[in-house]
Amino acid sequence: MSATVIASLGAMSRWEPGAAGRLRSAAMELFAERGFDETTVADVTERTYFRHFADKREVLFGGEEQLQAAFLGAIAEAPEGLSVLAIVDAALDAGGRALEEVRARDDARARNAVIEMHAALQERERLKLARLAAAVAAALEQRAVDTLDARLAGDLLVSVFTTAFAQWIAPGHDRRLVELQREALLSLRDLLAPA
Amino acid sequence: MSATVIASLGAMSRWEPGAAGRLRSAAMELFAERGFDETTVADVTERTYFRHFADKREVLFGGEEQLQAAFLGAIAEAPEGLSVLAIVDAALDAGGRALEEVRARDDARARNAVIEMHAALQERERLKLARLAAAVAAALEQRAVDTLDARLAGDLLVSVFTTAFAQWIAPGHDRRLVELQREALLSLRDLLAPA
Repeated sequence: MSATVIASLGAMSRWEPGAAGRLRSAAMELFAERGFDETTVADVTERTYFRHFADKREVLFGGEEQLQAAFLGAIAEAPEGLSVLAIVDAALDAGGRALEEVRARDDARARNAVIEMHAALQERERLKLARLAAAVAAALEQRAVDTLDARLAGDLLVSVFTTAFAQWIAPGHDRRLVELQREALLSLRDLLAPA
Repeated sequence: MSATVIASLGAMSRWEPGAAGRLRSAAMELFAERGFDETTVADVTERTYFRHFADKREVLFGGEEQLQAAFLGAIAEAPEGLSVLAIVDAALDAGGRALEEVRARDDARARNAVIEMHAALQERERLKLARLAAAVAAALEQRAVDTLDARLAGDLLVSVFTTAFAQWIAPGHDRRLVELQREALLSLRDLLAPA
């Protein structure tokens, strides 16, 4: 057995992100080709598959906790005295980078195409984003931001993230998610700037 | 038959908003007392009921189109040359007023309590708000606002509306929804103002 083969077997151990990522890509391609409902777990090599994902949905929604942890971690760790805007900006950078790490752009495109075809998956996605907004608001309240501002800032973060994300996965686009987020946040500031 | 009785029977005709409003209040109280799943249509006087609502859910989600029409109407009718912010502000005023007209505050409180107890109803509510944000974005694009700004502004309108709405139905509060919306919009502007 060559060193490369041994290394790649090592990479298949349960919590290795690279292997899970490759399996996710493979499953995602199948979903895109055959449709989510039509793809059976057997189609994506059952045994290996279950080493990494609890079920089919997990392929689409796995990584959610990591993403949320990145946003929340940045809020918890922001230096004292930063404005709410600066904290949101730092959280968007951390979350955007985390997303680009866990999910390749083509993978995100395939995922999105699958979700758009299924009302139940869209609902799961909306719920995820609603929870993210609420978690961001709660994390900001922990930083002594008042309830109203924290809620508005949580919604704002999710709005900027999803708007930039939609651009990031649009066909033919190749700019970084974090850049697109910064631009969207600037656009929002311009929209709200006194005339 | 006294003039008052005749007048009140007249008020029960199919599309009269006052009668539908009273029936909605009665049903809402039953939902709050007995639970949404436990309340049968028979409980709320079947025959009269169906004159006004297609089903139980309609009691909770009826009036949705009117509300959306108020927001969108204000966007369509805003004078030429207004900033996006001024258009959003006008839309919030129109939508907030429309909501206060179709639903009494205590009614809105009872409705909210019911929705919070049922995951399926929460999903319906999230879907409604996601559609409102998308419809606002589309209406702004009709006014030649660019796609990115329109999307951010649609999210922003829904964020301000839902944040103010949560305050409006908080126990013991008695300020007007439109006022709370104006304040929330100002808070959001302050959050995003350059330091």
